[in-house]
Amino acid sequence: MTHSVAILGASGYTGAELVRIIATHPGLRIAALTADRKAGQAMGMVFPHLAHLDLPVLQRIEDVDFSLIDMAFCALPHATSQAVIAALPRDLKVVDLSADFRLRDPAEYERWYGKPHAAPDLQAEAVYGLTEFYRDEIRAARLVAGTGCNAAAGQYALRPLIEAGVIDLDEIVIDLKAGVSGAGRSLKENLLHAELSGGTFAYAAGGTHRHLGEFDQEFSKLAGRPVRVQFTPHLMPFNRGILATVYVRGAPEAVHAALAARYDAEVFLHLLPFGALASTRSVAGSNLVHIGVVGDRIPGRAVVTVALDNLAKGSSGQAIQNANLMLGLEETAGLMLAPVFP
Amino acid sequence: MTHSVAILGASGYTGAELVRIIATHPGLRIAALTADRKAGQAMGMVFPHLAHLDLPVLQRIEDVDFSLIDMAFCALPHATSQAVIAALPRDLKVVDLSADFRLRDPAEYERWYGKPHAAPDLQAEAVYGLTEFYRDEIRAARLVAGTGCNAAAGQYALRPLIEAGVIDLDEIVIDLKAGVSGAGRSLKENLLHAELSGGTFAYAAGGTHRHLGEFDQEFSKLAGRPVRVQFTPHLMPFNRGILATVYVRGAPEAVHAALAARYDAEVFLHLLPFGALASTRSVAGSNLVHIGVVGDRIPGRAVVTVALDNLAKGSSGQAIQNANLMLGLEETAGLMLAPVFP
Amino acid sequence: MTHSVAILGASGYTGAELVRIIATHPGLRIAALTADRKAGQAMGMVFPHLAHLDLPVLQRIEDVDFSLIDMAFCALPHATSQAVIAALPRDLKVVDLSADFRLRDPAEYERWYGKPHAAPDLQAEAVYGLTEFYRDEIRAARLVAGTGCNAAAGQYALRPLIEAGVIDLDEIVIDLKAGVSGAGRSLKENLLHAELSGGTFAYAAGGTHRHLGEFDQEFSKLAGRPVRVQFTPHLMPFNRGILATVYVRGAPEAVHAALAARYDAEVFLHLLPFGALASTRSVAGSNLVHIGVVGDRIPGRAVVTVALDNLAKGSSGQAIQNANLMLGLEETAGLMLAPVFP
Amino acid sequence: MTHSVAILGASGYTGAELVRIIATHPGLRIAALTADRKAGQAMGMVFPHLAHLDLPVLQRIEDVDFSLIDMAFCALPHATSQAVIAALPRDLKVVDLSADFRLRDPAEYERWYGKPHAAPDLQAEAVYGLTEFYRDEIRAARLVAGTGCNAAAGQYALRPLIEAGVIDLDEIVIDLKAGVSGAGRSLKENLLHAELSGGTFAYAAGGTHRHLGEFDQEFSKLAGRPVRVQFTPHLMPFNRGILATVYVRGAPEAVHAALAARYDAEVFLHLLPFGALASTRSVAGSNLVHIGVVGDRIPGRAVVTVALDNLAKGSSGQAIQNANLMLGLEETAGLMLAPVFP
Repeated sequence: MTHSVAILGASGYTGAELVRIIATHPGLRIAALTADRKAGQAMGMVFPHLAHLDLPVLQRIEDVDFSLIDMAFCALPHATSQAVIAALPRDLKVVDLSADFRLRDPAEYERWYGKPHAAPDLQAEAVYGLTEFYRDEIRAARLVAGTGCNAAAGQYALRPLIEAGVIDLDEIVIDLKAGVSGAGRSLKENLLHAELSGGTFAYAAGGTHRHLGEFDQEFSKLAGRPVRVQFTPHLMPFNRGILATVYVRGAPEAVHAALAARYDAEVFLHLLPFGALASTRSVAGSNLVHIGVVGDRIPGRAVVTVALDNLAKGSSGQAIQNANLMLGLEETAGLMLAPVFP
Repeated sequence: MTHSVAILGASGYTGAELVRIIATHPGLRIAALTADRKAGQAMGMVFPHLAHLDLPVLQRIEDVDFSLIDMAFCALPHATSQAVIAALPRDLKVVDLSADFRLRDPAEYERWYGKPHAAPDLQAEAVYGLTEFYRDEIRAARLVAGTGCNAAAGQYALRPLIEAGVIDLDEIVIDLKAGVSGAGRSLKENLLHAELSGGTFAYAAGGTHRHLGEFDQEFSKLAGRPVRVQFTPHLMPFNRGILATVYVRGAPEAVHAALAARYDAEVFLHLLPFGALASTRSVAGSNLVHIGVVGDRIPGRAVVTVALDNLAKGSSGQAIQNANLMLGLEETAGLMLAPVFP
Repeated sequence: MTHSVAILGASGYTGAELVRIIATHPGLRIAALTADRKAGQAMGMVFPHLAHLDLPVLQRIEDVDFSLIDMAFCALPHATSQAVIAALPRDLKVVDLSADFRLRDPAEYERWYGKPHAAPDLQAEAVYGLTEFYRDEIRAARLVAGTGCNAAAGQYALRPLIEAGVIDLDEIVIDLKAGVSGAGRSLKENLLHAELSGGTFAYAAGGTHRHLGEFDQEFSKLAGRPVRVQFTPHLMPFNRGILATVYVRGAPEAVHAALAARYDAEVFLHLLPFGALASTRSVAGSNLVHIGVVGDRIPGRAVVTVALDNLAKGSSGQAIQNANLMLGLEETAGLMLAPVFP
Repeated sequence: MTHSVAILGASGYTGAELVRIIATHPGLRIAALTADRKAGQAMGMVFPHLAHLDLPVLQRIEDVDFSLIDMAFCALPHATSQAVIAALPRDLKVVDLSADFRLRDPAEYERWYGKPHAAPDLQAEAVYGLTEFYRDEIRAARLVAGTGCNAAAGQYALRPLIEAGVIDLDEIVIDLKAGVSGAGRSLKENLLHAELSGGTFAYAAGGTHRHLGEFDQEFSKLAGRPVRVQFTPHLMPFNRGILATVYVRGAPEAVHAALAARYDAEVFLHLLPFGALASTRSVAGSNLVHIGVVGDRIPGRAVVTVALDNLAKGSSGQAIQNANLMLGLEETAGLMLAPVFP
């Protein structure tokens, strides 16, 4: 049986990535695509690489007949998303890819996003979408909040370590290298090829990046006490991929063992042999996560490297994985695409 | 029913691309992978992006039991290929991705490749693998010779125009921009990131590139008289994709009409509206070809742009498309992967 | 003696490149920098790579005291430039880097730029700034019009060939590969790293690019009769450099000889040995031009490749070279910077 | 007065960069270039971007008449360098760019480089070449050992902090992003454009990178007790530039103040305003270092970012700066080149 899905906000990169993956998904069919300012255009005009697909014309959200839709993917900008989802039928299954429903605590939301949440009831209802750690809740959920792509990378490194109690909770540094597609299709000077392609720089350093709200929430909940990590993202001159280099205090072998125990049965989470290092090129274009552990020369310190594709596993692939669960499909349906290299 | 395939020479980029595509192919199963110098290694050691797949260990060709193989893809270097294929069982179906069996005329082969062909009987048997133009022959063939990736790009622009008689056969210029993966995984100074990434240059200019042998053979056969084109390839600082800019003399509308008539029913060949230009980003990672036609300000001149992915449609995708035909599978099986952008 | 210069429109890439070169120029001193919307800011805010220099704060043009200025470089957008220059003191020496004064014929200007020229008297006064071909006029000029960067590349290939009468004037094709900095610091979707970095595409194909106005004007004047070339630019995923691949009809050796004769004494124009090919990497960051000639396998046809840095020799370097002449300085002053590779 | 210099090992990137900078240096003249395997070739054959310069032909070291040479730059591979320098005249001034003379302690050398030093007397004689911290010793030295490029970046962040006693010596993490030219012109698979351009990965993680030997030596000496830092370098898909992200414990304002006090008078070391972040694009092509300090949200922690060009300030620029001191020239002579952007 094929489920009909709508993609709201299809003119951005995560929208296009949803279409790309669904194009070969055996259980999903795209029944509606929306993009307010581009309503009336063919998707192939907005993204020529999708021109060969038989897709509905872009329309405005208010013109979608949601009675024909089994699942909506909401790929709208932060803040817009909560208003749009609040206006959707209350029985419609939704996977939201924005930041709007990631934080449980309204005060935390307001702190990180600068204004009160406009749909606190939905915020309370939403399930955090890190699939491998919220699988049962997601299966039962109506509204799932996709995680931040950076937040996903950091959590894949750290959650099992916190759960297993093998690291010092006050000594965590996440140095992250983020491909530029994570910044979206936005016209900003520092995203121009001429500005970015020749080098790199840090941004939102010192604890100001919004994905820290997710780290704080999730790590503190896991640990049963406040956990605050250091986090420095860097903008990288490549399009797809996140590499998180995570510095922890703990026995390196215990770190590796905790990850091995937790991820052994996970299809998409691939722990490398002890001493190996993750590389973005090994996962780009796929729903895979590569994780490596290395011991430092200083005893009791380890470095965990995590690589994933921000648009796939970090965003649209995760969304489809969650949708599969919510719709009763096989979790991996449509997601076994191999990475594209070179 | 699933067919068992062997990939001979699996440690190069076209070998890896075969594995990537077959990973989601419903009718093919990889039963053997060979790489002489890397025999005994796991494919995931050679290409970490394929480490998640359940693949046979790399072995030497002589250790493969070909009685269990339905189809061999031969992704070996030029010259090596003819020796290897000559030693395979004579009833084994083979798609060769090298240059060894592309040219029909032994003298032409020797002229372009610098020595006599070592398996002239196989050369006579082989069918030229430009699927859309040799479909019936390929379906009946035992041995199919994959085309050059540049040669494919040029032919998709020009064959219908020669067939339709709408262009001047003596006034054809193909200026081609080739992504660096077309040069293979070879350790050459000019393929280093530090050497290539900041610019571009022409190579094999002036009529010395070996793919000219294919152009000469095919265009002359089509035209019924010798045709010689000008061809200048340029090495590009991106990994996947070929853009051919083809200058022709003829009425631009007639050029567009001839392509439209010929490609209307072709799934992978996508003619853009008159005046539009092809872009490699719209096809990278897929088996698609985009073709555009623009009229020049000088009456009677047109520019045809063709974009394809050299590793996919230009090589491994084409090989699987041909294998599908040879095995009685649906021609598009496993090949409907959408392009990866950004 | 040091001359005081003003750079009008210093917040774009050509403005920054002027500053970069003048930073080590022995005879020029930057006395004023303007950028209307960024007036009041330090140059180091707009271009952090120039923060170490002791530069005047950005100001509005009307706040510059031009009585203290010996030479103004005008790096403003097309159309803006003519209005600004018309309002400058009429005895101020000016090198304009925009397109506003490149075309002699008001009708041609209107045809290519879509509206009548607003300062036809200045248009008549301006000298075309292709230094090596207008040296005497430039030395005597008050207002020099910098050439288009693509137009410069094409002319370096073709002018000596037209002058020497060694090529067929009706059979010229210029296929050009242009680094993205030529498009300026403008917020356009197709200039984003995520959109551009993985491939290439043609633009303004078929004879619509405005630099054709310069080709038409200059080649026709040289030939004494109308000359119309074909010209297809392609946007490239690198920042600096233009490679022009020029297809001509004529004896290849004669083509090489004509270039050799003309460029033998030119410091910046470097003709490669017959058969060699130009590469952008060999000139990026410098005021050099590399030119190569190859004979085609078809007798009587040749390919000329030209490489230059669009921001340096194609724009700001050329401007300084012209300013040197206008100020009575040594032509090469400040311009002997070696290319930056890798 | 102009000093004659020889560049030994001129066929690598640091050799080429020496030539590039010396090309506009007012006090140095290249009198000899050596490259054993390429002896007899013109430098322009090996590096076409230097073809316009009037340079001596490459020769073998034994064919150089060192009596005519005032200063030798030794840009040879590690281990080779010590043998070559041991055979040079003992009164010849030498700046070595290899790792051979960076470590003072023979045991430490053997530990990091895997074999005993072959010229321990020279090792004892050599002065460590981090100019701003060994200025007097360098001025008086005959043999100066250029620092590792990564080691330079880390030390510019940390030395003043250790000297001022404002950070915890046991809690230092250096996460470093290194442009690929730092790996040299070597034919390795992971340096190919097709392998590297789409992503990033860590290497030599866990405390195995040889530049740690320099950190240990210098930081321990400064602190008067053993200091061991964590250090993870990452290979980056750009050509020039190092970005070091350094995590320290200490009051952020005190960190900034210590750097400000130490670097206030340094021409090439540019401390950004508190809260600003360094970017490689702002220094590429120049001898500049940009340094930024940000406070973390966790009190008592700071992040120091350092950007420099690995080929210039990290290697060849530093070498020339040292040579200027050794020859009695102005320290900045020839080194005021502005960064190249975009």
